[in-house]
Amino acid sequence: MNKGLLIVLSGPSGVGKGTVCSVLRSKMPNLTYSVSATTRPPRQGEVDGVNYFFKTREQFQEMIARDALLEHAEYVDNYYGTPRDFVDRTLASGKDIILEIEVQGALKVKEKFPQGVFIFLMPPSLDELKQRITGRGTEEQHVIDHRMSVAAEEISLIRYYDYAVVNDEIDAACKRIESIIIAEHCRKDRFMSELADMLPASEKV
Amino acid sequence: MNKGLLIVLSGPSGVGKGTVCSVLRSKMPNLTYSVSATTRPPRQGEVDGVNYFFKTREQFQEMIARDALLEHAEYVDNYYGTPRDFVDRTLASGKDIILEIEVQGALKVKEKFPQGVFIFLMPPSLDELKQRITGRGTEEQHVIDHRMSVAAEEISLIRYYDYAVVNDEIDAACKRIESIIIAEHCRKDRFMSELADMLPASEKV
Repeated sequence: MNKGLLIVLSGPSGVGKGTVCSVLRSKMPNLTYSVSATTRPPRQGEVDGVNYFFKTREQFQEMIARDALLEHAEYVDNYYGTPRDFVDRTLASGKDIILEIEVQGALKVKEKFPQGVFIFLMPPSLDELKQRITGRGTEEQHVIDHRMSVAAEEISLIRYYDYAVVNDEIDAACKRIESIIIAEHCRKDRFMSELADMLPASEKV
Repeated sequence: MNKGLLIVLSGPSGVGKGTVCSVLRSKMPNLTYSVSATTRPPRQGEVDGVNYFFKTREQFQEMIARDALLEHAEYVDNYYGTPRDFVDRTLASGKDIILEIEVQGALKVKEKFPQGVFIFLMPPSLDELKQRITGRGTEEQHVIDHRMSVAAEEISLIRYYDYAVVNDEIDAACKRIESIIIAEHCRKDRFMSELADMLPASEKV
């Protein structure tokens, strides 16, 4: 059986990663979504193992110590991270798994899992991104300026990714991501082990 | 504007390249199909520039001499080849062009056009390919044996291709090819020139 693919979907804050992922969930029900570990307390209705794996700080630090996370970061005094075990088990079962993550986290995942498929979700333009960030109406000017400057820096990190998908229209962006996943399964390199079973020994590649 | 992609669809004789291409024509009307040059006379209803570019032997040899063909071969005393000019003009207009060709011809195209996307159409199994070849009911046993041995040799050349698409079911195979074309347009490398326009000079990648 073909092993599944780890798909890493990243991009600057405000580009619409979360919305794209939730539409993908309905369009590609066979895709598994990575579940993060966190030390923040569960909110009402959140289920352990579905929304997050809820951990104590001690449990989380122990996971860091035994390299059980593909990446982790601390925000507002809480840890967040990607458990390697959940990813590995999904892939071993032959299913694809998608991980939605910010740009720095994605690059850490790449260090530990270079065979993943790294997709960068792009705004149609920097002006469009600014509008989306401003459009939330909750940020002061200096916060917006800072976020735009971070976004430009992050976009320059696209060189470490495999694909760039422009999020001009959500269904179009989802179709591109779905196409990338189908195409990656057709890559010759991923296909060579199956091929070995098909050819007579004299023609082994 | 993004330049178009040259898609090369190849695979062993009997795998169904022609059928897949004709279904693709209806599913992807924006794709241009490469038109071959040939010295064989037009058959009833064939139109110059649509079915083939019809050439005299002198004209064809002159095209070979000035390297105007991406590949060419001679069958049953007639030349067949792929005019480079038609491919170049289509790509420059921003459109993708697909070339359906046998395995040896595809490898010659790759020498002259390595930036193409090379797709190998695979039979689900060698037994299945044998059935398709035998199923035509027109070949003697030694011809079938010879074609099977050629097919096994050709399949071993898959290592020079980018993608392998199994032709288990025609609509599924077409969807895989369509996905490969969409995904290739999203490849980061093909996207870098557009990106240069988007980023401030300080963040150039």
